[in-house]
Amino acid sequence: MTQGARAEQQDSVGTQALAARTAARALAAASSAKKNAALTGMADALGGQLPEILEANAADLVNAEGGDMSTAMLDRLRLTEQRILDMAEALRKLIALPDPVGQVVRGSALSNGLQVTQVRVPLGVVAIVYEGRPNVTADAAGLCIKSGNAALLRGSASAYQTNRVLVAILSNALACAGLPGQGIQLVGAHRSTVGELLTARGLVDVVIPRGGAGLIEHVVSHATVPVIETGIGNCHVYVDAAADLAMAEAIVLNAKTSRPSVCNSAETLLVHRDIAERFLPPMAAALQDAGVTLHGDPAVARLASHVLPATEKDWATEYLSLDMAVRIVDSLPGAVEHIARWGTGHTEAIVSDSASAIAAFVAGVDAAAVMVNASTRFTDGSEFGFGAEIGISTQKLHARGPLGLPELTTTTYVVTGTGQIR
Amino acid sequence: MTQGARAEQQDSVGTQALAARTAARALAAASSAKKNAALTGMADALGGQLPEILEANAADLVNAEGGDMSTAMLDRLRLTEQRILDMAEALRKLIALPDPVGQVVRGSALSNGLQVTQVRVPLGVVAIVYEGRPNVTADAAGLCIKSGNAALLRGSASAYQTNRVLVAILSNALACAGLPGQGIQLVGAHRSTVGELLTARGLVDVVIPRGGAGLIEHVVSHATVPVIETGIGNCHVYVDAAADLAMAEAIVLNAKTSRPSVCNSAETLLVHRDIAERFLPPMAAALQDAGVTLHGDPAVARLASHVLPATEKDWATEYLSLDMAVRIVDSLPGAVEHIARWGTGHTEAIVSDSASAIAAFVAGVDAAAVMVNASTRFTDGSEFGFGAEIGISTQKLHARGPLGLPELTTTTYVVTGTGQIR
Repeated sequence: MTQGARAEQQDSVGTQALAARTAARALAAASSAKKNAALTGMADALGGQLPEILEANAADLVNAEGGDMSTAMLDRLRLTEQRILDMAEALRKLIALPDPVGQVVRGSALSNGLQVTQVRVPLGVVAIVYEGRPNVTADAAGLCIKSGNAALLRGSASAYQTNRVLVAILSNALACAGLPGQGIQLVGAHRSTVGELLTARGLVDVVIPRGGAGLIEHVVSHATVPVIETGIGNCHVYVDAAADLAMAEAIVLNAKTSRPSVCNSAETLLVHRDIAERFLPPMAAALQDAGVTLHGDPAVARLASHVLPATEKDWATEYLSLDMAVRIVDSLPGAVEHIARWGTGHTEAIVSDSASAIAAFVAGVDAAAVMVNASTRFTDGSEFGFGAEIGISTQKLHARGPLGLPELTTTTYVVTGTGQIR
Repeated sequence: MTQGARAEQQDSVGTQALAARTAARALAAASSAKKNAALTGMADALGGQLPEILEANAADLVNAEGGDMSTAMLDRLRLTEQRILDMAEALRKLIALPDPVGQVVRGSALSNGLQVTQVRVPLGVVAIVYEGRPNVTADAAGLCIKSGNAALLRGSASAYQTNRVLVAILSNALACAGLPGQGIQLVGAHRSTVGELLTARGLVDVVIPRGGAGLIEHVVSHATVPVIETGIGNCHVYVDAAADLAMAEAIVLNAKTSRPSVCNSAETLLVHRDIAERFLPPMAAALQDAGVTLHGDPAVARLASHVLPATEKDWATEYLSLDMAVRIVDSLPGAVEHIARWGTGHTEAIVSDSASAIAAFVAGVDAAAVMVNASTRFTDGSEFGFGAEIGISTQKLHARGPLGLPELTTTTYVVTGTGQIR
């Protein structure tokens, strides 16, 4: 790249962020009715411009097929008419959700007569750095608009043509609804643009990475702008001595196999030694029948066949595939210890009929969600009834678990007086 | 420093953080009664060991007097019997405050029968990096213990002897109450220890800097651990065309002069041009009588004497002294623009009797607190009725404004089922 080209491109992220800030102020002041009208317009526009979107997507696919992308990755990148209509439908679903902006979180009258009200306001400019799937583009844009924020979208280079067309359509629909089109912008897919977003203090209010562990680690290490970490899920299911074994088998099978590529799927099975002999052989067979490769410690290998030896790497790995690590633990505290050492604070599940075991597990593990006698797969914005989600936060600040619309806001204290001084 | 000494010291922050993590788990599980008993013990211990604390403080003061510390800084460092008893009293006040841990933030039953409950849990290990005043040591320790967190305290080198004795007393009192003494630890005051805390991902859950702009900038730039920014307050008072001028004068005088060294004092006065001629001459005289130096634009200088010319630097400066920048604005949007450009998102005030002007100002400024007809000085945890505060957040994530006990917690979703799968 020439120096000139590099300067122009650096300028461009800064210029975009500045325009986003201006747009954010108008979006913050927009009524719910106006924002909902924009969402309708955005959904209609996606549905009305299918050929243009599919054509851009075809170009991305042609480029990708020349590279080393896996079939799964290619499938994530691929749009179909149905997938685009699903994106439009997701935008329409946001309309019915309550607008978080203006909600009063708490309020009180002080003894000196001051009225203190804590009110939800938009964050401002939200940057989303994501990989793969182009549906994130519409989802993230819709969530930001509904919550009164401007969106700076930095998708992957492989989806650039698709994202460019999607953002042009969405931004245009926003402008047609009387809101600033620059409230939705796509940032160039050059390597350097991520870094520019991550350090745009004063211009970008928060960066939300959506993607694999490498992306998230990069963002956290390089950002000076506040970050909401999302989505690394090394989730465990602990089958207690007091578990209903049939329930445990159904939960483990569901947690591992219903959609292995997502962050709320289970990666490690921890089994209390008292029930291991009864539980593990049929459980292992059921998992293997479903195509799962087991990685177990020696005690596991004694109870099931075709078990690969597990190392510390297995305890640490978010497989995102039909692999599962299996360990027999001596006690509930042993399970809690294992999770404290290897968990990523996403979702941890216990299957048990013992109230005291459940209480000890809930108090002992430190995670965004703890499932009691339910599949890890329920940690999800729409399952929780939040409508859409922009990710699942695995950090402790700001928001933990599924990030819905209220999590895309901050608050202001409005203090009203009659001339009070201190 | 020898390599050996450096290695030992690096080890030491890591070892301390690891011990803090273990302590944090016990503190998270501690009952309110036990934590309150510890706070009583901590307060009693401070009151009972006055000579030891004063002796250590005298040693710090002797060291400091050899350096280039200002009289104001020396005063901040100095402890007296009364100041120590005030620290003990502040700890006792925490006892009566509600324990945030275990509070249910929200909950619902899903249509599939799952019970979802969002519960407050401690953050874990909270590192506080602070300057100057040793009372922060006891305040921060008390707030952390009450909210079930372990505290890693990194005070300034100038207060090291004092802090060392304070932490030994507080930690010992914690242990006597049956809680892990390593829940309150002082980190060495070497330069490198700040960096070690800032990058202790997985060991430290949040870093809260308390101090000047330089410290906060350093922390934000170097941290990979999540940070809560606090306390930079370039606060404005806008006197609207529809203001009660006597009220405005009292508020401006209070906001500037009642305690100029704190973050919620006002730094810039913005005056609507329609009332400038009536308002500014007596206002300027009143401020000058109170010892305030005015820095104004040419329009201000025409209406008041002894006004130093203001530059952009003045608009940008948090003086923290008896200086005030003054600007005449053409309109309310002009005031909002000025604040958008130069404010730090702490506290902005409007004095006006116009409901529409107030609404426009509240909607237009983006700050932790907006004061309507009240002094900026009210942005304060105890004024808001939160009891103690650990700082005033000027960032948008997690918490904005005074940080009380609930802001020292995160949440967990506890999802209870009867075998549900997806």
